Amino acid sequence: MNDVIKTILNHRSIRKFKDIPLSREQIDTIVRAARMAPTSSNLQPFTIIGVTDPDLKKFLAKRSGNEDTINQCGYLFIFCLDLYRIMVSASAEEKVKMRNTLSFSYFNQTAVLSVGIALQNANLAAESMGLGTVIIGGINGALPDLDEWLDLPEYVIPLAGLALGVPDEQPEQKPRLPQDAIFFENKYDRDLREKVERYDKEIEEYYQARTSNRKNENWSKKIIGMLARDLPLGFYSEYIRRKGFIFK
Amino acid sequence: MNDVIKTILNHRSIRKFKDIPLSREQIDTIVRAARMAPTSSNLQPFTIIGVTDPDLKKFLAKRSGNEDTINQCGYLFIFCLDLYRIMVSASAEEKVKMRNTLSFSYFNQTAVLSVGIALQNANLAAESMGLGTVIIGGINGALPDLDEWLDLPEYVIPLAGLALGVPDEQPEQKPRLPQDAIFFENKYDRDLREKVERYDKEIEEYYQARTSNRKNENWSKKIIGMLARDLPLGFYSEYIRRKGFIFK
Repeated sequence: MNDVIKTILNHRSIRKFKDIPLSREQIDTIVRAARMAPTSSNLQPFTIIGVTDPDLKKFLAKRSGNEDTINQCGYLFIFCLDLYRIMVSASAEEKVKMRNTLSFSYFNQTAVLSVGIALQNANLAAESMGLGTVIIGGINGALPDLDEWLDLPEYVIPLAGLALGVPDEQPEQKPRLPQDAIFFENKYDRDLREKVERYDKEIEEYYQARTSNRKNENWSKKIIGMLARDLPLGFYSEYIRRKGFIFK
Repeated sequence: MNDVIKTILNHRSIRKFKDIPLSREQIDTIVRAARMAPTSSNLQPFTIIGVTDPDLKKFLAKRSGNEDTINQCGYLFIFCLDLYRIMVSASAEEKVKMRNTLSFSYFNQTAVLSVGIALQNANLAAESMGLGTVIIGGINGALPDLDEWLDLPEYVIPLAGLALGVPDEQPEQKPRLPQDAIFFENKYDRDLREKVERYDKEIEEYYQARTSNRKNENWSKKIIGMLARDLPLGFYSEYIRRKGFIFK
């Protein structure tokens, strides 16, 4: 097994860091790795914002649901979808036309996929250097105020944080859904109940056996509990619309 | 520089392959790599479908705008967003509630990001084994018919293909936007015009100097030309709605 596959298969999220900041060289290498990501039609629809301002860091720690992790980490990146940059060279007429195109969900979807690809390049580059990392989806909890902090123009949307640092924990690896539940050939197999039950049992044992944060929970129960609530999500589609994307 | 960073920085898309199919072991390793991807709240919101049916492969080749590449490749994966699997264990009442939650753009966005992360794990695992790869965004051109071929349920949406094989070309690496155009600290820098012009000049020289498919084009011109057209994209938001996502 080569080092790339080893790094990928060895992944576990790290949420506790030693008080050691990343070096300029480490930050630079991670950004270069993200930059080299393949993107559809060479759109390169992403911007990365590094957080060094202590007030901004505190604000994000409070609003993201990951307070200790963000306060402790050696560096924090924010990965944004960016379809603003491609507009700067357009004529007024072209801009009007592009706004109509970008109004469709299609290019938003393509851009988000590209951000994920670039984010994982950064993540693996960091892990390969011995750094611990965790992706912070919770930065959504800092919207829309985060836009003012970062001075984001229209068509630029923060999607996830990447907190990094020298690991101060070595957690067990969380089991994943069995391969036969996520990979098929030629046709989707809807007969998933037994496979999910098998995984539920496995992850229940994992939660009970692990050294920290033990709990009595399985996958289905946790996710269904999370999604079958009245979530105040209207703010998000409202936010997306205010950024210029109209889902028509 | 370690092997992970070398693999990441050495990326170039490969569109010509030798007539050698991938081995079962190679396919299995690539799927395992994707499976180990981190996902927000452990949602694991993706499904990978491998294509071995020659008729399905021909259909995708025709409809994706990458006919030769898909016909020649040693294997083809289709990466799908999947929020169907998490519903199979839910009660009828929970299902109704989840449908309301999933109706918001928020979880679609989160899931697409996760698919990108998993896709890049697969991509890098393949490249690290010496395989050539190219991500095929164009499989969108096969929608909605592709759903019938793959028998996809609601909340499962194909986002991109990954064509792989033994490389039969060694293209030059395409330059990326300069680092100072995609990375900022603390605040977005809207002063982008000069940086984009610098990149336009660089990529123009690249297109004119490369050994195959020479053309007279720069980045802005190409992308603006692509986006400032009347694109028939209404079908896509219509499709997303039919899959269960309502952007309200």
